[in-house]
Amino acid sequence: MFNCPIPKSDHEKILLGHGSGGVLMHQLIEKVFKKTFENPLLAQNHDSTVLDFSGARLAVTTDSYVIHPLFFPGGDIGSLAVHGTVNDLAMSGAKPLYLTVGFILEEGFAVEDLRRIVQSMQNAAEESNIQIIAGDTKVVDRGKGDGVFINTTGIGVVEHALNISPRSVQPGDAIILSGDIGRHGIAIMAQREGLQFESTIESDSASLSAMILPLFQKKIDVHCLRDLTRGGLATALNEIAQDSGFHITIEENEIRVEEQVRGACEILGLDPLYVANEGRCIVFVPAEQAAETLSTLREHQQGRQAVAIGCVSEIQDKRVTLKSSLGTVRIIDMLSGEQLPRIC
Amino acid sequence: MFNCPIPKSDHEKILLGHGSGGVLMHQLIEKVFKKTFENPLLAQNHDSTVLDFSGARLAVTTDSYVIHPLFFPGGDIGSLAVHGTVNDLAMSGAKPLYLTVGFILEEGFAVEDLRRIVQSMQNAAEESNIQIIAGDTKVVDRGKGDGVFINTTGIGVVEHALNISPRSVQPGDAIILSGDIGRHGIAIMAQREGLQFESTIESDSASLSAMILPLFQKKIDVHCLRDLTRGGLATALNEIAQDSGFHITIEENEIRVEEQVRGACEILGLDPLYVANEGRCIVFVPAEQAAETLSTLREHQQGRQAVAIGCVSEIQDKRVTLKSSLGTVRIIDMLSGEQLPRIC
Repeated sequence: MFNCPIPKSDHEKILLGHGSGGVLMHQLIEKVFKKTFENPLLAQNHDSTVLDFSGARLAVTTDSYVIHPLFFPGGDIGSLAVHGTVNDLAMSGAKPLYLTVGFILEEGFAVEDLRRIVQSMQNAAEESNIQIIAGDTKVVDRGKGDGVFINTTGIGVVEHALNISPRSVQPGDAIILSGDIGRHGIAIMAQREGLQFESTIESDSASLSAMILPLFQKKIDVHCLRDLTRGGLATALNEIAQDSGFHITIEENEIRVEEQVRGACEILGLDPLYVANEGRCIVFVPAEQAAETLSTLREHQQGRQAVAIGCVSEIQDKRVTLKSSLGTVRIIDMLSGEQLPRIC
Repeated sequence: MFNCPIPKSDHEKILLGHGSGGVLMHQLIEKVFKKTFENPLLAQNHDSTVLDFSGARLAVTTDSYVIHPLFFPGGDIGSLAVHGTVNDLAMSGAKPLYLTVGFILEEGFAVEDLRRIVQSMQNAAEESNIQIIAGDTKVVDRGKGDGVFINTTGIGVVEHALNISPRSVQPGDAIILSGDIGRHGIAIMAQREGLQFESTIESDSASLSAMILPLFQKKIDVHCLRDLTRGGLATALNEIAQDSGFHITIEENEIRVEEQVRGACEILGLDPLYVANEGRCIVFVPAEQAAETLSTLREHQQGRQAVAIGCVSEIQDKRVTLKSSLGTVRIIDMLSGEQLPRIC
């Protein structure tokens, strides 16, 4: 008798690409998580879940952070773990209120580094006007973790009646991008690969809530918001095209990419449209409110370079197309596998 | 010139004991986390944080689960991650409502195992009457994780006016233990060490909310609740003695430990008082309500073996003493270092 175990196919093992925000991750979510956890609240398919609690609208979101390296130009895993979750609240139109923090530490991790990270979280929380209200610490054996992983769960309150969701997107909506793209992903990659530039490329990691909340005070009819994290601008647009049902067109000329970031993308063979950001978002508003939206965003430091990059068409093909500077048009797909693992 | 780096002292590195619920963990929390994150809500020092939201009392708690092995007699990391967080809500007197789930997967982890874990979470959530409303998945490279780590954050509502807290504990309070102790920790240790017993020792992992909530319906004046997790009964009692300021006495004869668990503890050199549980708690109530509390707990499967094990004295020395079956009295300290790493 043969004792020859046939190796199982790769499809049955978790791949790095399952965590990169692209097609593989969406498949995993659909086939494993949603199939089992199915309920109407989870099916909202948005950055935060919004639910009724005691007559108010509560927003809840959770994220784990496994970024490598832990410290990078423009931030560290601590500030990132606050910004990322605060931004998910902001993207559902919520005002951030409370944050829980769970640490998974690896045996041997320097307490001094932990102190730096904890201080950085506190600073980011103060800037974001969110209170850290509960925490947990676990330790795993040396070689079974990677320094520190952090989970943050955010709770916020929605103080307006808008339904911020891909399903609220309408044909004719203007799409506004809050700033340049690609800096977070490239800052991380450059550090990993030891790339040197004339000046250091800093991550765009930042809290977006103070930039977004004035849109509601000004009664702008915001249809949808999405921050550009794993999978970048291209993936965010594809998710919204998919969930809204409509075709989205964007103009390459309008999308700002810093020269050094563009150069690094060329060296690394990356398309900036797919590179992760941690302080950028897109805003969908009726075309007639685009100018007021732009001026409101530009009042805040994080939105100073906000631009309209495209619009929603009435074609219901769920696709995204890019009009290049030469006038050619190409389809922008969702990120298919893994581009930059452990970018957040 | 010498290039002879002096190794830093162990005190500056994270040790496994920092995650085990004992003295080291309390020091880390005080010196690193609380020092930086200080705020009144975090200072509640309880299993969940209770805060006012829109005229109601919201309870929030977070926990990460890094248990090894992932599957064990009586449960798996999925059911544990639901029970543990539901119990933290129940221990603040809250009715569980919503749960968020964050997965950190290791590259190469079998999708089939993930499916089992996800199904087990869903089953535990249904039994606990809690809805899974948001999730997140990250993937780390092979050798930088250990299969799967799970964070769950729970949100509940407190529907009574009691202030369940160590600070509500009064001299004369009866202390009720909900069942036998030590099964979770020993089930895990036995599997790790390959110990064989006449019958398999199963973890006590279970949701306690359905056992606890009737106490409030019956208007029992519950002063404090605490589930017995890392550090076991001894650590839970010490935490409450510390935070209430009072002396606690318990009677060894009343504490139920299954024969096989006691045998395993002897083989492994463990004291069952310090062994982790995941479905046991202690309840502090006025002595005159002890009988009604016991009968209420015993109506539920998880509380069938509930017993009064001791009481709170008026001495304000923050200590815990155990009266042995021989009549001798000894001080029960907090777990000092690491006893059973990665037990939850």
